[in-house]
Amino acid sequence: MSNNLVGIIPPLITPFVDDEVSTEKLLENLSKYESHMLSGYVLFGSNGESVFLTREEKLKIVQTVREHTSRTLVVGTGWDSIKETISLSNEAAELGANYALVITPSFFKSEMKHRSFLNYYTRVAESVMIPIIIYNVPKFTNVNIEVETIIELSTHPNIIGLKDSTENPSRISELKANVHSGFKLIVGTASVLYSGLLSGASAGILALANVAPDHCYQIYRFFKEREFDKALEFQNKMIPVNKAITSKFGVAGLKAAMDLLGYFGGSPRLPLEPLNEAQQIELKMILKNASLID
Amino acid sequence: MSNNLVGIIPPLITPFVDDEVSTEKLLENLSKYESHMLSGYVLFGSNGESVFLTREEKLKIVQTVREHTSRTLVVGTGWDSIKETISLSNEAAELGANYALVITPSFFKSEMKHRSFLNYYTRVAESVMIPIIIYNVPKFTNVNIEVETIIELSTHPNIIGLKDSTENPSRISELKANVHSGFKLIVGTASVLYSGLLSGASAGILALANVAPDHCYQIYRFFKEREFDKALEFQNKMIPVNKAITSKFGVAGLKAAMDLLGYFGGSPRLPLEPLNEAQQIELKMILKNASLID
Amino acid sequence: MSNNLVGIIPPLITPFVDDEVSTEKLLENLSKYESHMLSGYVLFGSNGESVFLTREEKLKIVQTVREHTSRTLVVGTGWDSIKETISLSNEAAELGANYALVITPSFFKSEMKHRSFLNYYTRVAESVMIPIIIYNVPKFTNVNIEVETIIELSTHPNIIGLKDSTENPSRISELKANVHSGFKLIVGTASVLYSGLLSGASAGILALANVAPDHCYQIYRFFKEREFDKALEFQNKMIPVNKAITSKFGVAGLKAAMDLLGYFGGSPRLPLEPLNEAQQIELKMILKNASLID
Amino acid sequence: MSNNLVGIIPPLITPFVDDEVSTEKLLENLSKYESHMLSGYVLFGSNGESVFLTREEKLKIVQTVREHTSRTLVVGTGWDSIKETISLSNEAAELGANYALVITPSFFKSEMKHRSFLNYYTRVAESVMIPIIIYNVPKFTNVNIEVETIIELSTHPNIIGLKDSTENPSRISELKANVHSGFKLIVGTASVLYSGLLSGASAGILALANVAPDHCYQIYRFFKEREFDKALEFQNKMIPVNKAITSKFGVAGLKAAMDLLGYFGGSPRLPLEPLNEAQQIELKMILKNASLID
Repeated sequence: MSNNLVGIIPPLITPFVDDEVSTEKLLENLSKYESHMLSGYVLFGSNGESVFLTREEKLKIVQTVREHTSRTLVVGTGWDSIKETISLSNEAAELGANYALVITPSFFKSEMKHRSFLNYYTRVAESVMIPIIIYNVPKFTNVNIEVETIIELSTHPNIIGLKDSTENPSRISELKANVHSGFKLIVGTASVLYSGLLSGASAGILALANVAPDHCYQIYRFFKEREFDKALEFQNKMIPVNKAITSKFGVAGLKAAMDLLGYFGGSPRLPLEPLNEAQQIELKMILKNASLID
Repeated sequence: MSNNLVGIIPPLITPFVDDEVSTEKLLENLSKYESHMLSGYVLFGSNGESVFLTREEKLKIVQTVREHTSRTLVVGTGWDSIKETISLSNEAAELGANYALVITPSFFKSEMKHRSFLNYYTRVAESVMIPIIIYNVPKFTNVNIEVETIIELSTHPNIIGLKDSTENPSRISELKANVHSGFKLIVGTASVLYSGLLSGASAGILALANVAPDHCYQIYRFFKEREFDKALEFQNKMIPVNKAITSKFGVAGLKAAMDLLGYFGGSPRLPLEPLNEAQQIELKMILKNASLID
Repeated sequence: MSNNLVGIIPPLITPFVDDEVSTEKLLENLSKYESHMLSGYVLFGSNGESVFLTREEKLKIVQTVREHTSRTLVVGTGWDSIKETISLSNEAAELGANYALVITPSFFKSEMKHRSFLNYYTRVAESVMIPIIIYNVPKFTNVNIEVETIIELSTHPNIIGLKDSTENPSRISELKANVHSGFKLIVGTASVLYSGLLSGASAGILALANVAPDHCYQIYRFFKEREFDKALEFQNKMIPVNKAITSKFGVAGLKAAMDLLGYFGGSPRLPLEPLNEAQQIELKMILKNASLID
Repeated sequence: MSNNLVGIIPPLITPFVDDEVSTEKLLENLSKYESHMLSGYVLFGSNGESVFLTREEKLKIVQTVREHTSRTLVVGTGWDSIKETISLSNEAAELGANYALVITPSFFKSEMKHRSFLNYYTRVAESVMIPIIIYNVPKFTNVNIEVETIIELSTHPNIIGLKDSTENPSRISELKANVHSGFKLIVGTASVLYSGLLSGASAGILALANVAPDHCYQIYRFFKEREFDKALEFQNKMIPVNKAITSKFGVAGLKAAMDLLGYFGGSPRLPLEPLNEAQQIELKMILKNASLID
């Protein structure tokens, strides 16, 4: 199964209609993605607004998506509460999730060190019936799990990969040189997809793949074909778009871009807010410049 | 009711036996606190390991504690998910909670600004049946809610106070000068209890009050009697202890100190770990130096 | 001499005319300050744009100011280069400086710890012919010197005080309880002048004292007379002004306020820029609301 | 001349004997480097302890090194003081420096934004007689110059490159796609040499090149020959060494490694300290594992 963690995997956004989860809109988006070269889907990544969803909403989404795709499903189940992390992972597994994506605990920042991570992830791995993927995203957690810790955790049979959302590919290459070949290294942000792949990553879980799945795939394909210059060219074309839907406009920007590109995006939940008019115009221009819209 | 938010309020730790919540131990601690000059209790503050508790565990604790005290109960109910925040607040209210303590949302850090906080807290305040208290704790959230935002929120009839866990009392004095008299300003860390009170705070919600409720009360009492030098003397005596149970040893230190002082502390949940032997010896020495133990 | 480090001390701004230091304008400002209740002057504090001045400019300023006042002169001489710090301190001493204010070295942030500071400050103290004052300003240096380190350094006969520009007065009270009575604790930011004095500080080195020397002095005087409520009232009145000339508009705001209040402010040096028109209007309004101008 | 900013360039350490600059030891090191495939030298990079050197020491070093090599000399001349930056750059130029490496001003962090950087660098570029290279090193400055700002500055005829010491190669690729071909992009840390080159960098200014100039050159050479797997292999072998001489042990580690490898390293200046014995042993092991010593 871990052979599936290759290529491009979008972390699906969560559509809301009148502030409630719309599985209908989610399935509309999904049916479009099914015809693209994608290797699977992540549910409840950061940009899926997982922190705004209730447990019930999450389980309903897992079930619904699982019924409509045979592709790999990676489900974000991690939180500071190890108890919740384990039980949600196992319930998701029963509903057909293939992997549990477990974000680093982070509330007690100053105490999140080597041993804390070892203990936490080992316990989770031993208690969850599907393989787990470590998720490192300092931009949101203000915590960073060290390469040394990941190397040690990689020997656990039920910890099978890392999604790394730093923009530092030297972490990927250092890990690649020190973990067994079955341990998957996954780039977590499109800005370093190209250099991540060249450093040893096997896949990308990329917000950008929600709006430009084919462009992301081209970067991956050209990399596989060792057409590195072409891969870099595609990568560079996507950088302004990727910035717009991440650091510049955040989830609201990602959702607005989806609306402009024929998917359903809609509004994020509070405390996030939809883009204002000026931001929408700027976003449109960025998508135009990248030839994603006319 | 908001008259109750004066004086000293401990944010109760959550006792675990074999990693499960022990309401028995919690009640043992509570019965001891009932004979001290405390104005109420906080359930599920940061040091109550609220991020490690499930919803069911939280509700059971609220119910149990409510049945055994008539004092004010402030219940930590906030999280990034506004939906969870509102529903947990209302369920806690039905079980007898008097106030909902709502931590700032913080996952999407760079977007947590004036308007996001206004929208979020206003919606929460309108949807919750008990008054809410804003909880600002940048040490754990890496987000800071500005004085200007709090001033604006203070005009909402169902937002009745702030627990501020920065160590900057100029925030308290600036707020004091700009909010109506019913809006309660609560110091969230013992290190600035003295200067917070002198700057306009009415109360302290202090981890230290779990282990040294009387000393905390003395600081408060001497302040009320305008015996400022004596208040400062008590404050200074407590600083090393307060450091030990917060920045130095964290929740594990707080729990270890409780064990040494005749309360039940026990171990924190993973990823936190209990103190090692060397740390225990150091902690003992600190408590001795402060004359809390012989 | 260290008896002089009490009361209010403005860290003088450096006036530029056509981007060159104007000692003429500096003396004009100085002659105004001489008639106010100020205990001395700081040259080359952070807001004096010390990082933009050459060594020659600094020495010229020390000499000029010394010739025109008999008040205490504290001269900022510290930098990462211990060699430069020592030689500038001694040259300033020869020109009549009374104290050297030595900012924490900070370039190699992650290595600036207990022992580094001990070694650095001990060497400086032993090599400089006037007493030195430690200057802690994490806002600019991203480095914080711990209370424990200061306590250890306070025993050195030639280290006679601390200017602390954090906004955390618990540092002041903890130090007060642990250093000898001759070691001076000086508040470095007006936002916590009131609570700093109540926590054991003897003086304030305050950017605000450049524009509102009398108001600062009133806070100090009422504190000395144990009229704490009046002190707090003055303090609160000054908070918006202090914010405007520090966190909100920085050195450019401080200089613009001086221009509006009858002193010479002028423009800061590059890379800083003078306020634009909208900012000037906002600043004027803030000064008006505080009754500093009509 | 800007054709020279390709390949590997070590930022030379500054040797001290009895705490004084030893040009003798510096020349000994230099004569060794002259026989390696290096494209030039940086004087007064961060690891050259530039912040600990006086102006006189710097000028003496420039003169001495210039007399003993015909290779490109890049001289670090930047500081917050624009006046000092310009005059030091011009004096270094007269002594034969080819480029001035100008670190971002950073003291007033919160005000170091797009316009401040534009104004500062434009003024410097117009006033300095040799071409300047922007130096971005957030690890030490806590300030980051945005890609957009660099793109704008790249059009100035006297600003001819960037040394970027973040570990994020997407900055390099984004710049590469947006600046003219003569603008040189230089990787500032060996951890991302490989991915930086693959993203469009022409050169590396690397602390690691002080201790392992040939290994660094191999990474560069294999990259040029499009033997990317071999380049990555060399890169990975160097990662533990690079960590040891940067994040783990800092300048003291770099200097200790030089001593172990036949160069002169010696001790850093205060407040830095030489490695203790345990650290020396650990460092030796790391160099052994990388086959740099037996």
